[in-house]
Amino acid sequence: MEHSARAQEGDTASNGGTVDGADRRVTSIFNSAVGAWAIAAAWEIGMLDELKTTKEVNAVEFAAAHGLDAASMVGLSRALAAVEVVEREGTVVRVSSNFDETYRTKSFFHWLVRGSAEIFRQMPHSLIKRNRVGAYYQRDSAAIAYACREINELCYDSTFWAAIARLGYDVGVVADLGCGSGGRVIDVLNRYPSARGIGVDIARPALENARLDAATAGLAKRTTFLEADVLDLQPRPEFADVDLVTCFMMGHDFWPKDRCVATLRRLRECFPAARRLLLGDATRVEGVADTDLPIFVLGFELGHDLMDITLPTIAEWEGVFEEGGWHLVRTNRIEMTVGEVIFELA
Amino acid sequence: MEHSARAQEGDTASNGGTVDGADRRVTSIFNSAVGAWAIAAAWEIGMLDELKTTKEVNAVEFAAAHGLDAASMVGLSRALAAVEVVEREGTVVRVSSNFDETYRTKSFFHWLVRGSAEIFRQMPHSLIKRNRVGAYYQRDSAAIAYACREINELCYDSTFWAAIARLGYDVGVVADLGCGSGGRVIDVLNRYPSARGIGVDIARPALENARLDAATAGLAKRTTFLEADVLDLQPRPEFADVDLVTCFMMGHDFWPKDRCVATLRRLRECFPAARRLLLGDATRVEGVADTDLPIFVLGFELGHDLMDITLPTIAEWEGVFEEGGWHLVRTNRIEMTVGEVIFELA
Repeated sequence: MEHSARAQEGDTASNGGTVDGADRRVTSIFNSAVGAWAIAAAWEIGMLDELKTTKEVNAVEFAAAHGLDAASMVGLSRALAAVEVVEREGTVVRVSSNFDETYRTKSFFHWLVRGSAEIFRQMPHSLIKRNRVGAYYQRDSAAIAYACREINELCYDSTFWAAIARLGYDVGVVADLGCGSGGRVIDVLNRYPSARGIGVDIARPALENARLDAATAGLAKRTTFLEADVLDLQPRPEFADVDLVTCFMMGHDFWPKDRCVATLRRLRECFPAARRLLLGDATRVEGVADTDLPIFVLGFELGHDLMDITLPTIAEWEGVFEEGGWHLVRTNRIEMTVGEVIFELA
Repeated sequence: MEHSARAQEGDTASNGGTVDGADRRVTSIFNSAVGAWAIAAAWEIGMLDELKTTKEVNAVEFAAAHGLDAASMVGLSRALAAVEVVEREGTVVRVSSNFDETYRTKSFFHWLVRGSAEIFRQMPHSLIKRNRVGAYYQRDSAAIAYACREINELCYDSTFWAAIARLGYDVGVVADLGCGSGGRVIDVLNRYPSARGIGVDIARPALENARLDAATAGLAKRTTFLEADVLDLQPRPEFADVDLVTCFMMGHDFWPKDRCVATLRRLRECFPAARRLLLGDATRVEGVADTDLPIFVLGFELGHDLMDITLPTIAEWEGVFEEGGWHLVRTNRIEMTVGEVIFELA
């Protein structure tokens, strides 16, 4: 019996080491893909937050405390360690050099690998022109909403409140278009104790969450949540007194240009008393080298290419406002990652 | 009108640059996840093969020639460029420093992000112990088969043929267990022109492909493809003369130990004339630092953790053969990535 013969027949049986280190770099691409899934999962199960607080977690104890599978939790920890989010010694992990930045950007990972994974997985199908009709792609809208709450906070919040501070009037009635689970409406009402708020969204489950959250916040009587398509909005009596309209992370759906102009005009008609429209969204990033792209851009833009949605540039937006019946007061270029901008319109 | 004000309110509105470069490293994790999807898709649509041959592809012309969406193809090219598989100038891409190694390992990427993506996407669900019953995870078995054909070639082929060369007898009848689409049976029959072959698999669509491929190869009369569960195989008249049994990339399903011993014994009974069993599979990798893991291991092992499959080590395998009724002639440690090994058993 010749035990443990080391196979040496042919190139493919070698360990694949290459002179220029390409094997480590390509392995790093592979391990990063696994790591991205581990980051999103670790956030969702509370492990990232525990690491943020305590700096050290025992994966097996964490599993026991949360009803999770111990072997899988060690495997997940290994994936986080492979991309240096943590260092691992057996079942114990400690925050490592990439932890803080990963924690800050966790919502982008979640958007990519939890909410939008199926778009990317099915790329060979959705690249084919003849397949690009009807509901040809799938996303997980609940997961997208989970990530977008934090993306909004991270990317838009400070600039949004600065724009609110510049309003020059006390808000009487705010309408948030594409309100999701109603966070923005609730936040604005908390700032203006005598204001009322209207949230408009096409997704009924999100509206139900919004009503619950508003009730929990003691704002049930001051809020109305309406199911409607913002792209085909009709005037309503509830809209008559709205003096602030906000619309975040959905403006790219207004495009192409002709439809965008028409939608902006319709908003003007639907909200005759509006003194300000705050429009915040991502825009197409241009002029950045492929290897210098900030986080999120590559996934966000390819994802929209695959969904057949062309993101407008800031210049394209600035070219439609007058025709759409709005006067541009100020462009706030946030450009944290995906060309975020908040337009202040009157 | 204050145009193009650069937002500067608060930390979150800055571009996120950090002193120690963690932002670039974490961005690289994110971009690698997108890049991994782009690699798998580029292989499947034929772009990697065209790049292999011509070194340069115009993404828009490639899209036109293959009925693909041009904007998405430029987006896919940007994703490949972000991970330095190619360099991009507008719509033209050229092979870059990571191309050859990516081309060599493309099947591992495909296994991860096309075949197994749903296992990783649903990690927050499948980590929870009480969810781990019944069919609690999904994979794309057609995509897995697509990748595994090449993984088999890359990892096992040269060592497999060396083991065949050591047989010391001409094969009369070969039986391949877990035969998939029948490639191994066909290959062995091509080597032994008077031999007959039997393929056994649980997946009917794979068997239909196997019959078609065998017919195309002019081997219809010399082959039989049977639908059966290898873990619960019964003796059959067709098995009586089988003198070579092969079984690749499914041996880990034999485990845990008691079931493995029972399965090995049953194979002994089912194939009384077998002179050799060639058993090739992945085994658990031990003693490698998390940041030094070769490609494939991190995804392969975490994927199996999530599927509740414990991979045996080489030592664990070597501990069951005698009890299972087989004599270990030789252990071929390939260990290219996931602890691949071929056991030669008599």
